[in-house]
Amino acid sequence: MNPIDSALLTDLYQLTMLQTYFDRGMREIAVFELFVRRLPPRRNFLVAAGLEQALDYLETLHFEDDELRWLADRGLFTRDFIDELAALRFTGDVDAMPEGTVFFAEEPILRVVAPLPEAQLVETRLINLLSFQTMIASKAARCVLAAPGRLLVDFGLRRAHGAEAGLLAARAAVIAGFAGTSAVLAGSRFGIPLYGTMAHSYVQAHDEEVAAFVDFARTQSGPIVLLIDTYDTEAAAAEVARLATRLRPEGLRVDGVRLDSGDLADHARKVRRILDEAGHPEIAIFASGNLDEWRLQELVRGGAPIDGFGVGTDLVTSADCPSLDSAYKLQEYAGVGRRKRSEGKSTWPGRKQVWRVRDRAGGLDHDVLALEGGAREGEALLQPAMRAARRVMARAPLEEMKRRASDGMASLPERLRALERAEPYEVRVDDGLRRLAAEVDARTTAAAAGGSVE
Amino acid sequence: MNPIDSALLTDLYQLTMLQTYFDRGMREIAVFELFVRRLPPRRNFLVAAGLEQALDYLETLHFEDDELRWLADRGLFTRDFIDELAALRFTGDVDAMPEGTVFFAEEPILRVVAPLPEAQLVETRLINLLSFQTMIASKAARCVLAAPGRLLVDFGLRRAHGAEAGLLAARAAVIAGFAGTSAVLAGSRFGIPLYGTMAHSYVQAHDEEVAAFVDFARTQSGPIVLLIDTYDTEAAAAEVARLATRLRPEGLRVDGVRLDSGDLADHARKVRRILDEAGHPEIAIFASGNLDEWRLQELVRGGAPIDGFGVGTDLVTSADCPSLDSAYKLQEYAGVGRRKRSEGKSTWPGRKQVWRVRDRAGGLDHDVLALEGGAREGEALLQPAMRAARRVMARAPLEEMKRRASDGMASLPERLRALERAEPYEVRVDDGLRRLAAEVDARTTAAAAGGSVE
Repeated sequence: MNPIDSALLTDLYQLTMLQTYFDRGMREIAVFELFVRRLPPRRNFLVAAGLEQALDYLETLHFEDDELRWLADRGLFTRDFIDELAALRFTGDVDAMPEGTVFFAEEPILRVVAPLPEAQLVETRLINLLSFQTMIASKAARCVLAAPGRLLVDFGLRRAHGAEAGLLAARAAVIAGFAGTSAVLAGSRFGIPLYGTMAHSYVQAHDEEVAAFVDFARTQSGPIVLLIDTYDTEAAAAEVARLATRLRPEGLRVDGVRLDSGDLADHARKVRRILDEAGHPEIAIFASGNLDEWRLQELVRGGAPIDGFGVGTDLVTSADCPSLDSAYKLQEYAGVGRRKRSEGKSTWPGRKQVWRVRDRAGGLDHDVLALEGGAREGEALLQPAMRAARRVMARAPLEEMKRRASDGMASLPERLRALERAEPYEVRVDDGLRRLAAEVDARTTAAAAGGSVE
Repeated sequence: MNPIDSALLTDLYQLTMLQTYFDRGMREIAVFELFVRRLPPRRNFLVAAGLEQALDYLETLHFEDDELRWLADRGLFTRDFIDELAALRFTGDVDAMPEGTVFFAEEPILRVVAPLPEAQLVETRLINLLSFQTMIASKAARCVLAAPGRLLVDFGLRRAHGAEAGLLAARAAVIAGFAGTSAVLAGSRFGIPLYGTMAHSYVQAHDEEVAAFVDFARTQSGPIVLLIDTYDTEAAAAEVARLATRLRPEGLRVDGVRLDSGDLADHARKVRRILDEAGHPEIAIFASGNLDEWRLQELVRGGAPIDGFGVGTDLVTSADCPSLDSAYKLQEYAGVGRRKRSEGKSTWPGRKQVWRVRDRAGGLDHDVLALEGGAREGEALLQPAMRAARRVMARAPLEEMKRRASDGMASLPERLRALERAEPYEVRVDDGLRRLAAEVDARTTAAAAGGSVE
């Protein structure tokens, strides 16, 4: 599936629109903003993620010769247009919320200011990259809130929607506070810590479970975490305890056991007791298997003696909400504010900034959605990311994004840290912005009424 | 995000297990089968898809030098093991259901027979590729059943979980009966027909809506489908009708209009009347916006005059069910049947075949899950795909897979073609298979009871 970074990774309509834009000389500066219209039913906030991949995409955007030839052969485009595409690069400005920023509905997380054809073409991939990682970071944040202080690891690669989803989900989960992932390529690509030891098939391939454990302990240099639910969980736990004692003189240490089925809380309690009574309180218990934030909360609140969790399918598919109602909308063209008024989908026009206002204790009080250059109070969340196609926001380590997300979640009003839906956070719409929206409406209504063919 | 076809696209535990397998000389032949444990709540059948990408992956699997160096630096693996990985290729056999085959829970859709380390390593990516495309093809099949005879187009790229998901979703949707996609790269990669014309931003970038339509009509060589809901849908429809009349002498034809918001059935009726009364019955109505199989069924049953539908987010995320309960399980190692008995996750051991038995009218009557070489009746669904690492199943055009899916859906009992959950299709488990499972249980119970350290 190479190459994935193709400029053809877009919707056909971007290209057909571009043909008209070029033909009609519509190359004035356009302003598009990317935002989430409404928070999903069970989300009180979102965590921005995916900006690094979005900027990489904009920096390297170009059509390859073979792609241009293929397009030319479609019978849809003029020769002049294909030449325009050959020369097309992204030359614009980008402002964005740094990754890990906590944000809310209707707040732009990214603004593109560029000649209309460029700003239009990139819509599909920008939504694709930013929505997905933001969605996963937001889901992962809920797991972190549900299991504070526990080790959380992404186990989702196999159930992710393809390869890129698996890689980027691992990255997004770490931004939100996960410790690491099982996905080896995410480790090599993003420097994310890797976790994982054995599967049921490994145990089954041995004629005896205990032989599988001994073989593993004697051939590994990394952590030894033994999967104990292939046949009988408690019997296996007792074997592990005996084994740990036996192996100690060899300088080998069993680091943990993993539970992957059945009543995890019940098994964890029994296994903890078996290990402790055999003198192995140092052996940790790790659990996996159909976990999500609700199950984590239940296990943690119930006091299950589980030290870490592998969260897979539900995390990487954001199972209860596998998409965000995200949009990338034209807010201004040729210096004039624009606004869509389609039923249920109207947008705020103009170039906007999001201001975050804190209370005396440093907690989040409210945000203000305002026109750029208008109201100013608190902290401006949109920051310069690219200027004239050059990256001006430094590439940050994941640890920095992780800290930002952690600080953001800690500053949230208590009610918004709950898994249940709460009274929404206040996002005020500044008066200047409301006035512009009214002006745009008046103008487009007049234009529609006065418009005629030609 | 290149390259996506890396051998590192796997879970860490595959590599740690392999280290033990190599060290202990566990290179006997292993048999793994991939299947779906349970049908999701609202699915009566599934449609197999993704085999071509799975076989591509197996054919080209290898570790690059820089990947091996990176792994060597982890401190987890021995030098000998890294050398083993350097030499590792997939050398095994694969049997699989051809893409487009309708299938049910517990039926293997792919079997891998290969030396244990190879068969183990590929687990993650095989599940990742086959689950995703199968899930999307199965969701798309429901849309096809809900809107028989209508043009269905995938619009989901922007909301797909990354690039690969967008591309493979387009492919899977076409296998299930969709006409095409908006994703340009899917067109160039898979030869899928492309659809799409304009977005709201295009209309908004013009000062007048009608100017946007005229510009478009005069600069496009492909189909002219005009988006009419940016401001006032019916007013725009009237403009389109006048425009179509005006442009006719220029040899220009308006092919259709698109509705993307509001009450689609109501708008479609009003727009159809406006167009017809203006003498333009040839202008088609295309609808999009938050569609899924239930909305399609409602619109079609309600008689909404809509000729085609763009289905996006709900299709490419399989929104009501964004994962399948798929598994890739060891069924035999070194000639001995294997079976996992973890609570709620037990599997059928041995190499299996799925037999499909039809009634006199050619409809599906029942399937039989049997050991290979055991019971034989009807049609064998698993067919040879690779032998000793060489592809033996011919690469088929998507049209052939589409025909297979269409025939399969047409042969389903009527109740299984409904969107609602129905009485399940009968999959009989052959006696020989039950006997083997009992034998494996007896052996592993004895081994567990008799097992001891060393």
